[in-house]
Amino acid sequence: MENFTFYSPTKFVFGKETEKETGSFVKSFGGSRVLIHYGGGSAVRSGLIDRVKDSLKKEGLFFVELGGVKPNPRSGLVYDGIELCKSNDIDFIVAVGGGSAIDSAKAIAAGVLYDGDFWDFYSGKKGIEKALPVGTVLTIAAAGSEGSGDSVITKEEGMYKRGTGSEALRPKFSILNPELTTTLPAFQTACGITDIMAHLYERYLTNSKDVEVTDRLIEALLITMKNEAPKVMKDLKDYQARANIMWAGTMAHTNSCGVGRSQDWNSHNIEHELSGLYDCAHGAGLAVTMPAVFTYVKDHDIARFEQVAKRVWGVDTAEEGIEAFRQFLISIGMPSTLGDLGGSEEDIPTLVKNLCYGDGRDGSISGFVTLNEEDCANIYRMMI
Amino acid sequence: MENFTFYSPTKFVFGKETEKETGSFVKSFGGSRVLIHYGGGSAVRSGLIDRVKDSLKKEGLFFVELGGVKPNPRSGLVYDGIELCKSNDIDFIVAVGGGSAIDSAKAIAAGVLYDGDFWDFYSGKKGIEKALPVGTVLTIAAAGSEGSGDSVITKEEGMYKRGTGSEALRPKFSILNPELTTTLPAFQTACGITDIMAHLYERYLTNSKDVEVTDRLIEALLITMKNEAPKVMKDLKDYQARANIMWAGTMAHTNSCGVGRSQDWNSHNIEHELSGLYDCAHGAGLAVTMPAVFTYVKDHDIARFEQVAKRVWGVDTAEEGIEAFRQFLISIGMPSTLGDLGGSEEDIPTLVKNLCYGDGRDGSISGFVTLNEEDCANIYRMMI
Repeated sequence: MENFTFYSPTKFVFGKETEKETGSFVKSFGGSRVLIHYGGGSAVRSGLIDRVKDSLKKEGLFFVELGGVKPNPRSGLVYDGIELCKSNDIDFIVAVGGGSAIDSAKAIAAGVLYDGDFWDFYSGKKGIEKALPVGTVLTIAAAGSEGSGDSVITKEEGMYKRGTGSEALRPKFSILNPELTTTLPAFQTACGITDIMAHLYERYLTNSKDVEVTDRLIEALLITMKNEAPKVMKDLKDYQARANIMWAGTMAHTNSCGVGRSQDWNSHNIEHELSGLYDCAHGAGLAVTMPAVFTYVKDHDIARFEQVAKRVWGVDTAEEGIEAFRQFLISIGMPSTLGDLGGSEEDIPTLVKNLCYGDGRDGSISGFVTLNEEDCANIYRMMI
Repeated sequence: MENFTFYSPTKFVFGKETEKETGSFVKSFGGSRVLIHYGGGSAVRSGLIDRVKDSLKKEGLFFVELGGVKPNPRSGLVYDGIELCKSNDIDFIVAVGGGSAIDSAKAIAAGVLYDGDFWDFYSGKKGIEKALPVGTVLTIAAAGSEGSGDSVITKEEGMYKRGTGSEALRPKFSILNPELTTTLPAFQTACGITDIMAHLYERYLTNSKDVEVTDRLIEALLITMKNEAPKVMKDLKDYQARANIMWAGTMAHTNSCGVGRSQDWNSHNIEHELSGLYDCAHGAGLAVTMPAVFTYVKDHDIARFEQVAKRVWGVDTAEEGIEAFRQFLISIGMPSTLGDLGGSEEDIPTLVKNLCYGDGRDGSISGFVTLNEEDCANIYRMMI
């Protein structure tokens, strides 16, 4: 195991009706003037936003609202949010939604306290040292952003999708009510499941040695997802399956199971170009990406792929393990080809160019294996 | 899964030579006048206390020292520590050692800010609302106190061993350098391994339903212990095995794998009377206690014991699983009978009386199963 620091000072409040406590948690973490940041209509129509507002009113807290966050959240709304916060002296941001609303809230939180262009953080020009405090009310088990210091934003100019991370972005509190996820349609539910499993695989593909404890923890969460996903796909209102998936999703991305080891994240980088270009769901893009990437890189450490095949999928070889995962993704309704995402072979040069050279990269991406232009083109071709 | 709050705001700093950063972490968490609290001579002889002191000096921090913490830490030294802190305006406590030093530091930290007798917290008369900040430099992978809000102290008058817990007791930072554990003798190492596994079993024995994610996480950590323990018992200087065990020990007790479910803790309660009366090592007492308790209560939920037998021990039945665990404990050098601990059948009435009526109890202990006097006597008799 390698030296590491692990710091996850987010208060997780899990269970039924917990969103009604939002106001009291904002107050306990020192907030007084709040931006409520959210996405589309469902959070409003379901009455969730009203419940959050009521909880803020109950505590006598001032608030303004900014809705309209889209999946693959955009830089434009971040700029709007920064201005809104500045003009209203906002001191706390509550994100209501999934990873998109939370990531957008984090970008605003960092941008408010920065004199330059917030995109500097995402292009890698600057590290984030401070940010407004953020709390979350999670409605989708997927991104893990509720328990991480990470954020991914798409720059509209060029449609570059880039991520950043900082301890300053870890939410102060995250309210996880599995009931809120029971109204999610099947496709979005499956996209979330795929994203959670990707966060686990990205950590599993390590070049570090002697990491049994973190291997076992990742496998535990992968097995949980393998077993609970079919239950929830069969009955979208299965509270217990939703609850297991929600906590697994959070634990998958606090990094408690990823410490002391190198990690991959090539699948995420390769996927980001897909959802950047096609505006497809991130989980759907990952479902197409991961089997291709794993097949391409497996010989780099075949024993590692065999291990997960045996311990998680109950099969013997690396190839069988990758195929079992691919079939699992298809079984929950995920796409499996570039065409399913609305893409085609003609797009590959653009995808590769954006991936390997876009916004500051130097011709390759690195992780479990370093992949150059040719490797990336080969991987995208495997998705056809 | 049941509603829960999970909050683990401890900064874990893991790896080689990390103790040299103690001073900078104290400073970053606002400490300026420090009590260094530790146990016996080994931390001094090894130069560890000097390295910690040097790191405090480097940051220009004032400090006083209080050594002499014994295994099963006593109330007497806690009173001394409280006085020492008050007379020196101490605002931060650094515990250097294992669970005993850390638990004693936590008791002092709470006692300094309380007008009454600190024992009120341990007898259950009062809850802990505030405490001085505590940081730890861990030297034994065992108690998990470095990542928990728990503390156990023995009251010299009556030799009652009692625990308390509060979010206010969670350490601000914990420095985990596996190198510091490589000088531990075999017996203490094995006691630590046993304690860690007990923390996992106590969480595994639940009456809650639909807790797959936490079941799987506990099993992951139990499997890690099962695999890494023989390596470290074979070569006490095996850094990687020590590192895996150290992180597993911390993760076993932050409660990240125990949320959303009822827990047991009867084995700990039953054992506390053993180490209270015989002053034996807590881990050694647990090794004698657990197989007896598990055998006595298994029929309450035989499927749960079968599950851990299959998934962790690779055997089919509940009985075989308990026996496999018992043999494992013997294989790492743990005792298996009351006699091994220096006890005898004659002590059972005293043990039962202290357990079921001592310091505020009403004739039974509750957990996975509620156990009355007769049950507890039967369990102690099974240890003969």
